[in-house]
Amino acid sequence: MKLQLALDCTDLSEALALLDEAGDLVDIVEIGTPLVLREGAGAIGEIARRYRRLEILADFKIMDAGEVEARIAFDAGADIVTVLGVANDATIVGCVAAARQQDRRIMVDLVAVPDVATRATEVVELGADYICVHTAYDVQKEGVTPLRDVQQVQAVLGSEALAVAGGVTAETVTALLPYDPAIVVVGGYIANHAKPREAAQAIRDRLQ
Amino acid sequence: MKLQLALDCTDLSEALALLDEAGDLVDIVEIGTPLVLREGAGAIGEIARRYRRLEILADFKIMDAGEVEARIAFDAGADIVTVLGVANDATIVGCVAAARQQDRRIMVDLVAVPDVATRATEVVELGADYICVHTAYDVQKEGVTPLRDVQQVQAVLGSEALAVAGGVTAETVTALLPYDPAIVVVGGYIANHAKPREAAQAIRDRLQ
Repeated sequence: MKLQLALDCTDLSEALALLDEAGDLVDIVEIGTPLVLREGAGAIGEIARRYRRLEILADFKIMDAGEVEARIAFDAGADIVTVLGVANDATIVGCVAAARQQDRRIMVDLVAVPDVATRATEVVELGADYICVHTAYDVQKEGVTPLRDVQQVQAVLGSEALAVAGGVTAETVTALLPYDPAIVVVGGYIANHAKPREAAQAIRDRLQ
Repeated sequence: MKLQLALDCTDLSEALALLDEAGDLVDIVEIGTPLVLREGAGAIGEIARRYRRLEILADFKIMDAGEVEARIAFDAGADIVTVLGVANDATIVGCVAAARQQDRRIMVDLVAVPDVATRATEVVELGADYICVHTAYDVQKEGVTPLRDVQQVQAVLGSEALAVAGGVTAETVTALLPYDPAIVVVGGYIANHAKPREAAQAIRDRLQ
């Protein structure tokens, strides 16, 4: 089970400071969408050069022009790029093609997909490497969690390609463990914690 | 009827060269998603400073964290930012809130929305300023055009907030004119034309 740290801030120096403090406790670092929009793909290269041990995920949330946009992420140094499950199949196919050309990987983000089990099965057939069950930041305040969708996707696909994201904390991660996801994504719980390193360690301990 | 030029390249200098050649023939310049992913929001400011007459649309295709991401576009100088129609309502509401704070506008992109008439009506109620009927780049090669969806959205909402995008050329724009869209978006037809200025002028002539 890998721990992915989502850098959801908009400031690169803030992101680097968080990585300096807790980067050694995680496996994958996610260049979050707001940071990409603010800084561009240059932020990917900057982080890839500084933290060579870490896998780099670019959270592009691709919706169209799949091959072109995935290539921007890979050329900048990303190991994994995200594409939206709500995108057209042709877009996911384009992302997969770009990944295969450079021996990289695609994560399909199921945020706002109505029927996650059906769509997860479809996108795996299109060549997706990971399927991320993801409760949107904007609906977490309504009390929504990814647990029910994790159950549904794990039931049809198993755990090997399963990732989970959306408000995960040291408390809520425990309920996810029986589904044995390949990747657990944690953002705000670590970044906004008074002691980010302790927060990362608390998650790490539970993933053992 | 406004003409929006979509800068769909990934290279800022190429985008600036196109604007130097044809920018005076258009009303709105779109900083395309690949350019945003590559260059970040800095490209918005750069273009806004150089072409003060033009309205600036940032094609962020926001899917989550609506208020945060819309603010990145507006702070950088965008007049309009795009949010996806497939996003959760809370995300669109967040984008609208950011727009109202800075007296800017939101365009909801209906790409990959199954029932465009219903969703268009919903997002106008949420406060969207423009509704963009949009055939994804990745499915244009399958021969799909935005015409049928334009008919459906225009029938329920009229033309005032209507924008249309997706493979529009000097030939295909004629079929859109009866629906009197507020904004017609043209990208590749101008950018990839042997004589981009003539292509822009040909579209412009038809919009009169």
